[in-house]
Amino acid sequence: MTTENDVLVSENHLTAFCTQILENIGVPSDDARIVVKNLVEADLRGVYSHGVVRFPIYVKRILDGGTNPKASMKILRETRTTAVVDGDNGLGHLVGVQAMQLAIEKAAEGDCVFVAVKNSNHFGAAAYYTEMAARHNMIGFSFTIGAINHMTPWGGAEAMLGNNPFSVAFPTREDFSIVLDMACSIAARGKIIVAAKEGKPIPEDWATGPDGLPTTDAVEALKGFVTPLGGPKGYALTLTVGLLSTLLSGAFFGSDVGDLYEKTSTAQNSGHLFGVLPVASFDDLDSYLDRMDKAISDMRNAKKATDVERIYLPGEREYLSLLKHRQQGIPLGQSLYRELAELGQAHALRLSRIA
Amino acid sequence: MTTENDVLVSENHLTAFCTQILENIGVPSDDARIVVKNLVEADLRGVYSHGVVRFPIYVKRILDGGTNPKASMKILRETRTTAVVDGDNGLGHLVGVQAMQLAIEKAAEGDCVFVAVKNSNHFGAAAYYTEMAARHNMIGFSFTIGAINHMTPWGGAEAMLGNNPFSVAFPTREDFSIVLDMACSIAARGKIIVAAKEGKPIPEDWATGPDGLPTTDAVEALKGFVTPLGGPKGYALTLTVGLLSTLLSGAFFGSDVGDLYEKTSTAQNSGHLFGVLPVASFDDLDSYLDRMDKAISDMRNAKKATDVERIYLPGEREYLSLLKHRQQGIPLGQSLYRELAELGQAHALRLSRIA
Repeated sequence: MTTENDVLVSENHLTAFCTQILENIGVPSDDARIVVKNLVEADLRGVYSHGVVRFPIYVKRILDGGTNPKASMKILRETRTTAVVDGDNGLGHLVGVQAMQLAIEKAAEGDCVFVAVKNSNHFGAAAYYTEMAARHNMIGFSFTIGAINHMTPWGGAEAMLGNNPFSVAFPTREDFSIVLDMACSIAARGKIIVAAKEGKPIPEDWATGPDGLPTTDAVEALKGFVTPLGGPKGYALTLTVGLLSTLLSGAFFGSDVGDLYEKTSTAQNSGHLFGVLPVASFDDLDSYLDRMDKAISDMRNAKKATDVERIYLPGEREYLSLLKHRQQGIPLGQSLYRELAELGQAHALRLSRIA
Repeated sequence: MTTENDVLVSENHLTAFCTQILENIGVPSDDARIVVKNLVEADLRGVYSHGVVRFPIYVKRILDGGTNPKASMKILRETRTTAVVDGDNGLGHLVGVQAMQLAIEKAAEGDCVFVAVKNSNHFGAAAYYTEMAARHNMIGFSFTIGAINHMTPWGGAEAMLGNNPFSVAFPTREDFSIVLDMACSIAARGKIIVAAKEGKPIPEDWATGPDGLPTTDAVEALKGFVTPLGGPKGYALTLTVGLLSTLLSGAFFGSDVGDLYEKTSTAQNSGHLFGVLPVASFDDLDSYLDRMDKAISDMRNAKKATDVERIYLPGEREYLSLLKHRQQGIPLGQSLYRELAELGQAHALRLSRIA
């Protein structure tokens, strides 16, 4: 995604900039730091679709009353291996971190634990939460419902499903976790948003317009429906992720789901589900890690296709991106940079560029 | 898949036929019944790729010494919410049912429970196990590693991954569970096997031949690689399902994985992971079921695309197929019917057709 026209901004500066804005609009300092760390890490990892490109809408929702800046998560119901929590309509990144932290703490004795969440909001990149678990030597799961419906049931012509993302992360001996993070459409809607902001076309199989026909126009695509991976399989998968994310807690699903970008003064009641499996409850950690080393080696050392220099593990490119962006700065598209800089002006904050 | 040339066989007759053959080759009666019920249910549900089309290879593996007909599953390690079991190289359908049953029993007090399995074999349709959980008002998960490597790591030209299937099932008030059951390729390899047996071509995006180029020849496709859903996403997904299925128990992964069809005298050491989340530990069952009713209604009553008469839920078509096949008989392709009938002759058993 990095192009010549991108503006480079340092991690620390971008973090301080966003944190100050959140504080200015009423988010407690500690909470603001948790949210912005999560958000900026997506950009560091090159997952631009879930990074600061979303920051303006999060700010707008707080200003418009749709999101609670001073949220306090409550546990509604709890057993030794389950919990249902109410996110108090807080920023999804904060609620997500607190709910996954609860799952990790509850699993300290070695249990498999799942925590279902209601009254939350868009939580950014699903991988952020599963990596928290992996750092505790647990396999982590996260599921969330998309913050807009823009997929149809298979055979339908009405958006009743979000492009619901999920993630699974595994502890490894590498410097990074192996982490799957995918949505159920062929491409994440966030990527269509980035393309629309940058005025770039999208591949033909990413979306249909409002008429249900394929389009390469990112702006038209945002008015239509995203196309599920593998047709009916993708429908079944996104329905499954949506049900997992909402039915255990009572978060909104289907016709109740609002629109992150349109209904900015209304609470979204987004749902998530977080789960952890502590590796050491199944086998000793070293035996597991030995097997993981071998699995990684099998992938890396497989015969390569013509012109392929290196085979990556899921999560590895993102980690390499993080190292590079930490050193060289985070690339922001010109229009995103301008949007953030303008947002800063309203707070008498300057967004400085490295290059 | 039903065509004019299909042979219809009754559920009861096909069940008795297969059960008798398994008993003849040393499988205890009770175990044979569990395996064949599972296998025939796939055909009833119209999931022909995981039904009796696989029966001849299961029989051959027992006869050749690759699968243990008198297996006895052992629990190797156990906590209150986890277990690791050794399938004693038994038929995967038997091991799978016993391991999921263990998960359900352990979850009787309301815990989230996961059971990891090693030393198992090809277990058929992943949905069979998750539906067991759904009937106990638990959300069920099943993951398994494919019994042949025929997918490459992304950028690779060597099969290091199976087309690893997984399933999630949800309790409902309907006569069927909502159940996702998918593999990570665009099409299940079993469907390519069926096409090859029937001499039919396959769509261009299902597989590449041994040269890595797309092919519509099902026989060539079986010598090459299956294509993952959504490119690198599908690679990440199949790797994830494979790691979940094997790393917690020590089942074979990657370069260690054998070939269901080729190495018939060698144990496969296949792995699975089963999980259950008891709904009532999160919220009262009726509240959950009310929400599920509404979710189902949202899907069914969505505006339909042109020429679409009905929107189905995942698992609904399979249930309707089961009702129909139970009444009218199970359709078997001509060549599969001949193959099974010949197998029967070796056991002095006749496979009778309804039509």
